[in-house]
Amino acid sequence: MIIAVDAAGGEYAPHEIVKGAIKAAQDYDVGIALVGRKDLLYVQTSRHLRKLEMSIVDASQTIEDNEPPVEAVNRKPDSSIMVGIKLVREGKASAFVSAGNTGAVLYSALLGLGRIEGVERPGIASILTLSIATPVLLIDSGANANCRPNYLVQFARLGTVYSREVLGVPSPRVGLLNTGEEEGKGNRLVQETYALLKQTDLNFVGNIEGHGIARGTADIIVTDGFTGNVVLKTLEGLGDTFLKLRNVGQVFSNAYHMESRHQLFDTGLGSLIKRIDYRESGGACLLGVNGDVIIAHGRSQAKAIRNAIGIARESVGRGVCQIIREEMAQPAPARS
Amino acid sequence: MIIAVDAAGGEYAPHEIVKGAIKAAQDYDVGIALVGRKDLLYVQTSRHLRKLEMSIVDASQTIEDNEPPVEAVNRKPDSSIMVGIKLVREGKASAFVSAGNTGAVLYSALLGLGRIEGVERPGIASILTLSIATPVLLIDSGANANCRPNYLVQFARLGTVYSREVLGVPSPRVGLLNTGEEEGKGNRLVQETYALLKQTDLNFVGNIEGHGIARGTADIIVTDGFTGNVVLKTLEGLGDTFLKLRNVGQVFSNAYHMESRHQLFDTGLGSLIKRIDYRESGGACLLGVNGDVIIAHGRSQAKAIRNAIGIARESVGRGVCQIIREEMAQPAPARS
Repeated sequence: MIIAVDAAGGEYAPHEIVKGAIKAAQDYDVGIALVGRKDLLYVQTSRHLRKLEMSIVDASQTIEDNEPPVEAVNRKPDSSIMVGIKLVREGKASAFVSAGNTGAVLYSALLGLGRIEGVERPGIASILTLSIATPVLLIDSGANANCRPNYLVQFARLGTVYSREVLGVPSPRVGLLNTGEEEGKGNRLVQETYALLKQTDLNFVGNIEGHGIARGTADIIVTDGFTGNVVLKTLEGLGDTFLKLRNVGQVFSNAYHMESRHQLFDTGLGSLIKRIDYRESGGACLLGVNGDVIIAHGRSQAKAIRNAIGIARESVGRGVCQIIREEMAQPAPARS
Repeated sequence: MIIAVDAAGGEYAPHEIVKGAIKAAQDYDVGIALVGRKDLLYVQTSRHLRKLEMSIVDASQTIEDNEPPVEAVNRKPDSSIMVGIKLVREGKASAFVSAGNTGAVLYSALLGLGRIEGVERPGIASILTLSIATPVLLIDSGANANCRPNYLVQFARLGTVYSREVLGVPSPRVGLLNTGEEEGKGNRLVQETYALLKQTDLNFVGNIEGHGIARGTADIIVTDGFTGNVVLKTLEGLGDTFLKLRNVGQVFSNAYHMESRHQLFDTGLGSLIKRIDYRESGGACLLGVNGDVIIAHGRSQAKAIRNAIGIARESVGRGVCQIIREEMAQPAPARS
């Protein structure tokens, strides 16, 4: 299995991306196709190329984070993003991982891979690991700022396949992100979506409020891409605040405090900090396009890139795309 | 100054509400009018009634948290909420504090007090104290699930008055909650709102992403009531998760660990936990109605109620309502 990796995308490109890709090639049973400027990448990887299953695919252009996606993709046909997507389309890679401009990845994937039949809008499924229990999928976490009820129902179906096939949840509980638990709460979008979700055969458990996200009362949190993105970044922001408390641990790093230190981390603080740190977590899956595309955080460092490649490998290994194709091709069965 | 307090609203009513009200009467220079069932309240307060400036105002009905607000308010004219609002309208109280059904408080305030001229929709301004710096106002945090750009501009103006007059920020920075920093990001609502905000004389600093909320890059975060409510509750949920880590502190409560314990709290963990705990924080102001109305958290305990009464006192003392009336009466001056 070859995973294409955008070596030019993200705040720490190319150095941390390359480092993460090398680590993934060492840790997992995958080959890596690094996409970016060949001359630059060769210098960094030459001593690994022979030992690992690793190649460089030249892409002369880079799309910056602040560029308007559609315009940039159209103006730069040889961007690392588009070249990576094409590798997937042509079957030269099984998946594409990028920490670059999210909008550009989304638009390139739509252009290069197209939508799966039955999917009006692909959604970004972010894997939240806030609670001790199974990770929670937040979909859509940023692909579609303006949504219709139908899109949200499709997100629920896409998320259900992913949660079941990759995260191993037998009958994933679908929650609709809302301002209250009762039916009828929220804005027009969620009110209409609620009515539609009730009619599907999905395991719809009703509305989930903001504080329910971390509680694990649903395996999939369905929302529009505007709200989802704001929520995701809010969680990150609070995570940042807590990361600054890392010195909590440092206080106890003195040898004579070792006992206390272990006790501290036993309370869960250490693992919680780790779980909300996007520098350590993997990436989000773009679900609904014809191919496996993983969107890593723009601030991903080596460890996060390695983990994102791990997520890509899982998605490919479980055949998520094919299963989505089969399930979306059938009309949504109504609950009897 | 008399503050009317809804003794029947909230998860811990009436016991914790009464306790908090008594504490406020002791700590602040305010009189309290407890609104609820006279017989019940008399038992709890009799020994304080003579010593403190405290009275009981009878209200025979209670609106439960899960009741549909409009219907409940119409069906229960003698609810503690409506009776409290009427005390404000009749000038018998300067403000009303309730931890009850938010929708019912909102609707009762609209019915009983009415909107200030120039305000199409009142907004709930929640005071977030996540960062070390000045508190951040989140408006609207739940009054209006469906918003128009105009409403958001009005929220910005309402929030500006509150931030300046009560929180003491000379020229409050207004940020628009969005999915990216650049103009043009987000859904149609925020795109149109951005264009309008640019034309006002408000100190509009542009878009703020989710992780910007805790960073204090804006003094006022403007958003629709759906997104605002979800974000507020998401923050609460993560706060809950961290509160469970209180045992972090307990680990060090043994005497021989006292030194470590102080060091731990010096790192800021203790104060951060305190700041995100809504059981300790005050309440949110309903801005844009003709009277001071404070919405406390449904799970408020005595301390939170006391603090909410403190917020009410500040609002009244600073004449927030009158200043809003004056400023909203003028047409919004365009930035030259």
